[in-house]
Amino acid sequence: MLYGIGVGPGDPELVTRKAWRLIGGLPVLAYPASAPGESFARSIVAEAIPADIETIEIVIPIRPQEVTVEESYGRAAETIAARLDSGRDVGVLCLGDPLFYGSFIYLMDRLADRFPCEIVPGVTSFSAGAAASGRPLTLRNDVFAVIPATLAEDVLADRLGQADSAAILKVGRHLAKVRRVIARLGLSDNATYVANATLAGEVVAPLAAAPQTAAPYFSMVLVRKESGS
Amino acid sequence: MLYGIGVGPGDPELVTRKAWRLIGGLPVLAYPASAPGESFARSIVAEAIPADIETIEIVIPIRPQEVTVEESYGRAAETIAARLDSGRDVGVLCLGDPLFYGSFIYLMDRLADRFPCEIVPGVTSFSAGAAASGRPLTLRNDVFAVIPATLAEDVLADRLGQADSAAILKVGRHLAKVRRVIARLGLSDNATYVANATLAGEVVAPLAAAPQTAAPYFSMVLVRKESGS
Repeated sequence: MLYGIGVGPGDPELVTRKAWRLIGGLPVLAYPASAPGESFARSIVAEAIPADIETIEIVIPIRPQEVTVEESYGRAAETIAARLDSGRDVGVLCLGDPLFYGSFIYLMDRLADRFPCEIVPGVTSFSAGAAASGRPLTLRNDVFAVIPATLAEDVLADRLGQADSAAILKVGRHLAKVRRVIARLGLSDNATYVANATLAGEVVAPLAAAPQTAAPYFSMVLVRKESGS
Repeated sequence: MLYGIGVGPGDPELVTRKAWRLIGGLPVLAYPASAPGESFARSIVAEAIPADIETIEIVIPIRPQEVTVEESYGRAAETIAARLDSGRDVGVLCLGDPLFYGSFIYLMDRLADRFPCEIVPGVTSFSAGAAASGRPLTLRNDVFAVIPATLAEDVLADRLGQADSAAILKVGRHLAKVRRVIARLGLSDNATYVANATLAGEVVAPLAAAPQTAAPYFSMVLVRKESGS
């Protein structure tokens, strides 16, 4: 069985009981890493991982050079397939929730036709961000949108304009663009900036008070319009 | 301290470690109930609740009669405030994630100005639904929308038309309307119906194969368009 295991936003206590139990009992665990030895997903659940199991580190560099992202996932899938073929269950750790913009999707696409697959959902980044903000994210008849900050400015403005509430994710170096869009829509007073939710470096601030420089990769802007609903 | 505690979609194992720990240690726990003695939220974490603590059942009838929903939350808030004023922490259980269409919002609005408040995020219903479906929910540069099925048909069609992927929630008696909208947009082959995700009565089916009659309240339709991104 191939398990896609959501480990949540960063706090080890925000891992589900089911994920923690599986991680403590599977013979093989795979996890994404931005560089050899650097896996945020693994670090979240390190305490649950037994010492003597097999681990597969899936290095997906942030700026791929010699090996493309496609090739990295392809190789990882083959390594995982070999373990599954030998009769061993494999758990793949995924930040947040596996099927919500999750890296696990790229492995599942390559393996789910050949092997039984079970997904363990996790707490999403925006749930953690909203909890840190202490403000309602979305309610009643709101249409809630999750909008990647990577989109072109006009598309971002259009999508945010359509929604009643929104989480703009992966803000990072797009913070200035996100600010402009929010100002354009008159939503500056409705926007909250959250970085590193649930982690030691967590920052929560009204968008106006957020840093002027680029934000960390794990940052978001939450917006709720007060009219309607 | 007032705690808003997400208990996830239904499976007790999908409760976070933090929620389970808090529930086992707080002196007062409050939870929503659709009728006296009938609390789905409480049933999810029943095993974690110590025998000798104080519990506050917040009855919010599905069809309010003598007492309005506003009055019910108002009374509950005052009962909870009295406990907080007496120096005891109170945990309020919430299905799924507290700030994501969560009932906790109505209590927080009445209490967070007077008492410190901490939110424990939970696994959302759509994460559980996607996990049950085994299909990617949203990825890369998708704009993902959460759309309440209660919206008027034209609004539902417009919002779904804008998004790259979507979870239509609270389908229940709106199933026929949701089907019409999806057919109108040519998305019938992209739609998956999920009912009672993570529970004994879980059903996953292509929308075409979903029941013809009204769906349970806890049902959803997940859609991902394949063009773009």
